[in-house]
Amino acid sequence: MASSSRFIKDPKTIAIVGCPFSGGQPKAGVDEGPIHLVEAGLPEQLKALGWNVRFDGHHQFEEINAKLGNDPAAGIVRDPPIGKLKNPRLVSEVTKSVAEAVGSHAKQGELPLTLGGDHSLAMGTISGTLSAYPDAGVIWVDAHADINTEETTDTGNIHGMPVAFLLGITQQPASYGASEAPFSWIKPMLTPERIVYIGLRDVDVGEKAILKKHGIKAFSMHEVDRYGIGRVVEMALEWVNKGYGPGGRPIHLSFDVDALDPTVAPSTGTPVRGGLTFREGHYICESIYETGNLVALDLMEVNPSLADAAAVKQTVAVGCSLVRAALGETLL
Amino acid sequence: MASSSRFIKDPKTIAIVGCPFSGGQPKAGVDEGPIHLVEAGLPEQLKALGWNVRFDGHHQFEEINAKLGNDPAAGIVRDPPIGKLKNPRLVSEVTKSVAEAVGSHAKQGELPLTLGGDHSLAMGTISGTLSAYPDAGVIWVDAHADINTEETTDTGNIHGMPVAFLLGITQQPASYGASEAPFSWIKPMLTPERIVYIGLRDVDVGEKAILKKHGIKAFSMHEVDRYGIGRVVEMALEWVNKGYGPGGRPIHLSFDVDALDPTVAPSTGTPVRGGLTFREGHYICESIYETGNLVALDLMEVNPSLADAAAVKQTVAVGCSLVRAALGETLL
Amino acid sequence: MASSSRFIKDPKTIAIVGCPFSGGQPKAGVDEGPIHLVEAGLPEQLKALGWNVRFDGHHQFEEINAKLGNDPAAGIVRDPPIGKLKNPRLVSEVTKSVAEAVGSHAKQGELPLTLGGDHSLAMGTISGTLSAYPDAGVIWVDAHADINTEETTDTGNIHGMPVAFLLGITQQPASYGASEAPFSWIKPMLTPERIVYIGLRDVDVGEKAILKKHGIKAFSMHEVDRYGIGRVVEMALEWVNKGYGPGGRPIHLSFDVDALDPTVAPSTGTPVRGGLTFREGHYICESIYETGNLVALDLMEVNPSLADAAAVKQTVAVGCSLVRAALGETLL
Ligand SMILES: [Mn+2]
Ligand SMILES: [Mn+2]
Ligand SMILES: [Mn+2]
Ligand SMILES: [Mn+2]
Ligand SMILES: [Mn+2]
Ligand SMILES: [Mn+2]
Repeated sequence: MASSSRFIKDPKTIAIVGCPFSGGQPKAGVDEGPIHLVEAGLPEQLKALGWNVRFDGHHQFEEINAKLGNDPAAGIVRDPPIGKLKNPRLVSEVTKSVAEAVGSHAKQGELPLTLGGDHSLAMGTISGTLSAYPDAGVIWVDAHADINTEETTDTGNIHGMPVAFLLGITQQPASYGASEAPFSWIKPMLTPERIVYIGLRDVDVGEKAILKKHGIKAFSMHEVDRYGIGRVVEMALEWVNKGYGPGGRPIHLSFDVDALDPTVAPSTGTPVRGGLTFREGHYICESIYETGNLVALDLMEVNPSLADAAAVKQTVAVGCSLVRAALGETLL
Repeated sequence: MASSSRFIKDPKTIAIVGCPFSGGQPKAGVDEGPIHLVEAGLPEQLKALGWNVRFDGHHQFEEINAKLGNDPAAGIVRDPPIGKLKNPRLVSEVTKSVAEAVGSHAKQGELPLTLGGDHSLAMGTISGTLSAYPDAGVIWVDAHADINTEETTDTGNIHGMPVAFLLGITQQPASYGASEAPFSWIKPMLTPERIVYIGLRDVDVGEKAILKKHGIKAFSMHEVDRYGIGRVVEMALEWVNKGYGPGGRPIHLSFDVDALDPTVAPSTGTPVRGGLTFREGHYICESIYETGNLVALDLMEVNPSLADAAAVKQTVAVGCSLVRAALGETLL
Repeated sequence: MASSSRFIKDPKTIAIVGCPFSGGQPKAGVDEGPIHLVEAGLPEQLKALGWNVRFDGHHQFEEINAKLGNDPAAGIVRDPPIGKLKNPRLVSEVTKSVAEAVGSHAKQGELPLTLGGDHSLAMGTISGTLSAYPDAGVIWVDAHADINTEETTDTGNIHGMPVAFLLGITQQPASYGASEAPFSWIKPMLTPERIVYIGLRDVDVGEKAILKKHGIKAFSMHEVDRYGIGRVVEMALEWVNKGYGPGGRPIHLSFDVDALDPTVAPSTGTPVRGGLTFREGHYICESIYETGNLVALDLMEVNPSLADAAAVKQTVAVGCSLVRAALGETLL
């Protein structure tokens, strides 16, 4: 029930920010994710949970392409790499516009639900959340840490780097050259002790070093097995709320569907064995909702072009179900 | 080993009550469940565990059909709905006869094992158990609460209502009209604090309200994930035995095979994702057997007509295996 | 990282002992297990973890066959049963030579990694380990207890008996007749309190009695469900290290791939439902590595001839992954 959302204004409203965007990684199709999720009936399902739901169509990013001189339909994309970063100007402009949309909803007391699209979008969503709730914490559920810097990235795919940008631990914008510095719009407001990971199991060597250096808390699948998901969620919330007043911080939940085991959510770009079960994924969402502190939610990396029809349908259904669980659907 | 059954008389005997009955729900085939379970060798498997096994063929319910003027083979069923209840006279008479059979075995110190058939049969089995052990407790393992009343039921399928009848919280028989009041034979001897659920994950809105109103204890899959199955079974037994003397109450275990995840037990009428694993299902059965207090067991809702041959075989094999685990088979 | 192996000398070295041997059981193909594991790149994967890796080709056992007058290629095997034991001379000689190889590596401060092949080989590997570390403990991860004696075995397949030989609780060599006593080379140096099982779920009646009689600690799948794998590994290590000085005993980990659920590792000779998940299997390996006390590792019973190509590939990949986890690969 929407009633337990402490920071959301009445009438409790979800603003769906549909982001058909794939520029942070190389596989086509992830831009279709939000379209499938909406077509599967997610807005109606959320209304049935008692929410007021705002959804005015998916973001189209045409102005951004026009500004960059791109014409994707004609195959024209003028966005050569900067250093190792691929599609840097496009990702920067898109995530900037997402930050504005999410921030605007959050400041009005609505709960922004961003449907990706690739996980580079979280630079936008979390920046938007922090513009409204500067002391929000982040729970990042993912097989991957997405914390590569320009130094450590092998691929230059920006969906593997958003946390580094949010923490301000990657290269400074100035170093790109003044005229076209991407990501200079990001004011790194997130601090390492306010983000916690759940579900990690495919972390690059450079990323492991970064996590260690900055003392970032992460519950890998090893910890999920050691403690059980119940205790892990409890510890994650304790960590992120440590030293904060009673009731706890506003929470932004960024859920990469590849956190789930590939048998549960096969249709995603970078599946990794040994992931969260259907039940564990839902347990996380339900538990965070129960805190009453959820202020923003991302569901990312559903890619309907990477599997057969049954697997796509399954992945989309699980995605909808996770969102419902994070927004008040309970078993009892 | 049969030796740890405190309430069962020597020589420890299981009385198999085969109930090929599907009248509590609309899908054909669940009446074939007990036939498949027996043909798979369940009686012999129980003998191999050291039990004396009585099985004189499945109940046929011909007299009941004759009495009602039905001729199922000819497609003649004279049992129009009463209010929303479907097949009310048939379900009432069948469950009454099952109550008599189960009660008779239980009073002789035998352990009745009822093989369904749909879960409406539990009105009979649990009434029978309570006639022999008035202070018995019930552990109900199911994806569903089966506690709809005539007020809350959408479908009128009585297999979604047996707990409401057992607790006496649905419409009173008198209100049906004196001449043909079904279920007037049920003396509601069960009280809300003596039933506990494990495995719930598809509970209707009206049912949630009933569970809350009557303070009925339920461990949904959320709690199974939070605490682990070990602690859940421990808490369920503590709950049902609360305030009872040392050694604990006689226990009736009513196991709906749809409590298991559909990947484990696919061949059932109302499968629901996110269910108990093979191991969790067996753990529950083993743990209840270990108490020494099991006095009656139901295995319900195996429907061999709802899946391909391999899935049916798997579901039947799991059903047999659950029964063995509840009747003394151990891993060590 | 190899750095946390307390008993292994610098430069930290793994000696791969490839044992294409199937004489302890009747199914052809398990001798191909080590060949597939090596071809899948296991040696290179271990180098990438920072180990020095020695591998000079698989053991061939030609001299043993020549000595026994066997010519397997021509179908000539002169090794009639002794009592119920099948292939007794061959298994005895092969395991004796494996004991020498493993013992020699262990004495040089290397970590022997034995790739089977059937689990009778563990008579050799554990004898070898104990020749270098007389007070080593054994963690035996398996669906089966492999502790049948000549008295209790039904099949006479020696892969179901190695623990009985290692403990010296089966028939004495002298009783076979002086001239051809097999297994007389084994000096039973293992004691019942220094072996602990994880994963048991298919234990013969006679084996259950043996485990009980000798007070051998076993965590069946029932205990894994009751306590969770985290606590089970903790208790297993506590058990095996009980009364030993600080830091704990040297540990020999003998991992039968059939400990995993057949959905995870289908391509093995005696699969049993209800097994360890992918994550639990890896958790065990990671946790034992973390102790710093691992001195020897077996991976047994990968049989690439028992399933379709995809299932074989999956089983081999899981086998490699388990070995890496036991030798320092971590999620974070
Ligand atoms: Mn991600
Ligand atoms: Mn990911
Ligand atoms: Mn039911
Ligand atoms: Mn059910
Ligand atoms: Mn085995
Ligand atoms: Mn074995």
